[in-house]
Amino acid sequence: MNINGRHYRTIWLKEDDKRVVQIINQLALPHRFEILDLRAVADVQRAIKDMYVRGAGLIGAAAAFGVYLAALEAGDNSFEQDVLQAAAALKATRPTASNLAWAANRMLARLTGCEARGARNLTAAEKRDVARRTAQAIADQDAEWCKQIGARGLNLIKAVAERKKARSGASAPPVHILTHCNAGWLAFVDYGSALSSVYAAFDAGIDVHVWVDETRPRNQGANLTAWELCRHGVPHDLIPDNAGGHLMQRGLVDMVITGADRATRCGDVANKIGTYLKAVAAQENNVPFYVALPSSTFDFAMRDGMEIPIEERDASEARFVSGKTAAGDIETVQICPDETPARNWGFDVTPARYIRGFITERGVCDASEKGVLSLYPEYAGILP
Amino acid sequence: MNINGRHYRTIWLKEDDKRVVQIINQLALPHRFEILDLRAVADVQRAIKDMYVRGAGLIGAAAAFGVYLAALEAGDNSFEQDVLQAAAALKATRPTASNLAWAANRMLARLTGCEARGARNLTAAEKRDVARRTAQAIADQDAEWCKQIGARGLNLIKAVAERKKARSGASAPPVHILTHCNAGWLAFVDYGSALSSVYAAFDAGIDVHVWVDETRPRNQGANLTAWELCRHGVPHDLIPDNAGGHLMQRGLVDMVITGADRATRCGDVANKIGTYLKAVAAQENNVPFYVALPSSTFDFAMRDGMEIPIEERDASEARFVSGKTAAGDIETVQICPDETPARNWGFDVTPARYIRGFITERGVCDASEKGVLSLYPEYAGILP
Repeated sequence: MNINGRHYRTIWLKEDDKRVVQIINQLALPHRFEILDLRAVADVQRAIKDMYVRGAGLIGAAAAFGVYLAALEAGDNSFEQDVLQAAAALKATRPTASNLAWAANRMLARLTGCEARGARNLTAAEKRDVARRTAQAIADQDAEWCKQIGARGLNLIKAVAERKKARSGASAPPVHILTHCNAGWLAFVDYGSALSSVYAAFDAGIDVHVWVDETRPRNQGANLTAWELCRHGVPHDLIPDNAGGHLMQRGLVDMVITGADRATRCGDVANKIGTYLKAVAAQENNVPFYVALPSSTFDFAMRDGMEIPIEERDASEARFVSGKTAAGDIETVQICPDETPARNWGFDVTPARYIRGFITERGVCDASEKGVLSLYPEYAGILP
Repeated sequence: MNINGRHYRTIWLKEDDKRVVQIINQLALPHRFEILDLRAVADVQRAIKDMYVRGAGLIGAAAAFGVYLAALEAGDNSFEQDVLQAAAALKATRPTASNLAWAANRMLARLTGCEARGARNLTAAEKRDVARRTAQAIADQDAEWCKQIGARGLNLIKAVAERKKARSGASAPPVHILTHCNAGWLAFVDYGSALSSVYAAFDAGIDVHVWVDETRPRNQGANLTAWELCRHGVPHDLIPDNAGGHLMQRGLVDMVITGADRATRCGDVANKIGTYLKAVAAQENNVPFYVALPSSTFDFAMRDGMEIPIEERDASEARFVSGKTAAGDIETVQICPDETPARNWGFDVTPARYIRGFITERGVCDASEKGVLSLYPEYAGILP
């Protein structure tokens, strides 16, 4: 993605020192664009836990680079043990997302001899090199998958645009797409999942307009999705999370596209809290609800979405809001009485029956075991 | 309602100068408790429009006191014309709510001779006295109706508590009630609608717990409902608006009770934006969804809720959040990029089919024309 004419990914190795991981500090957006250096696996853990980086694909890539930093730190004689321990700590930072464990496990497989091409016979120095190349490959693949998702989703948006044109001619209103949270390039290494399709459609000249759910309590929609859409020039409006039902009821949403933090092989999806409310309203109003996700977000070993662990985060996220003051400073304000407690679940589960389809790097499929396995037949046998 | 041991209503005539209307400044809550003087009808208009006062019953009472101030200001020879003009301006401040027009029209009926006991033969001074007494009567009736609503809703909550006890014995969890926006005493003259039942249940010793929807964009849940519940000592948790579906799905909501800004005779309800999403999710999860409202909130002359005008408010309400800084100051912060536009509808419509019942001052009824007219048969004939 281009920021002021320069191409950025959300995570990369520092140009002149490959022992340093660099990220865009997402806590500073949209008010400041800031690059942070992560020099130790502990920095990566904190970056994931405190959400300097967030989003399905990006926390996967961050975990991969985290294991790479762990490999740099690991003792020559305790390499495997040190890396396993660091990976376990990385995986524990956020419980709901699939990509985190997926990427960490893929790193471990290459570094701890679980794979046929295992690393048992390599020196520690060689293993560190494998770690760097594997982490980079995970990041590259994430970007490539997201690009493919964009191409697949573009077709869906194009079909809606053509239906609207057939109905209303040249004066047809734009394709109104509602999205929740941020499933743009900031949530991945590049391109994004839900927004990748929007960018592809916009770039193809389709008249699109995005309803951006604010996405309380952390405001990823207002802070990140809106910022991305501004950078790309895509028409959009910020709306409170409460508004989506009204818009659907009045025919002002043509489709909903969200990302996912984990999807089961039967098509249930955990995504940012509030997704479920939109999915239910979409079904009531016959608005197609799509989930865009790369295969790394699937948990092919799980059927029932109600088994997905739902992260509960600190109540302070619901009690305070941060933003920019009139003076241009970043300030945090408390929005409730001092005595009022809060609860703050990060995700909810949308059962498959509310989902019109999955948009993946391999194509679009039904949100069902049959649909998912039609695209990913290699996982058919891993559950009885 | 008692604040620090002293009884308050939300609006009243100043003790030692009955030409002054006093209100609790709801924009200052929960961080400051502040009384404001309204000395002219223009003050009342601004107070309603800018939401120093808000809530179905309270803006009705405010409109009534506003017409009273208009009567004080009106010329002796242009009394009727001046009062009609002021009432029209008051009614135009907020288009969605029923109570506003209801109360203003009731004042006009007494002051402009539309009623049998019309005011045509009274002097202007006598009319001003009628205006004061009528406004006070409207406020008193609002409080009394809300008290009745509490007694009616108490029975519903008690029934849920008894079912939970029958199932789980003494260790039964509390009755979890989810509410959206503020339909407490701050939204009326006293007691409230939705929360009146909660207070009655709490005072009757029933173990209740309230999930308080933050209610973006104006945060009436976080600012007002939470504050009221703190003052009364009712256990509660603030939640983002996004969380309600998750809670219902996990069996953590026993009932939803909201207020209403307008209800049609067929049972459709306009209420704070986001109510519809909760109602749809409640139906999906078989959670009973009740709307508590006095008869002044019914629009007996309207059948289809989709005809209710939906107020669109300034985008700044969605782009900025106010609260208390760590230093104790009230500050407003911008939560989105400078370039990002927003849309901000104040209400949505929940069709009757999602509503388990209405809790009114006359009893509980189905959200249907038959149900409503069973309690209010005197309105049966006003529509063909």
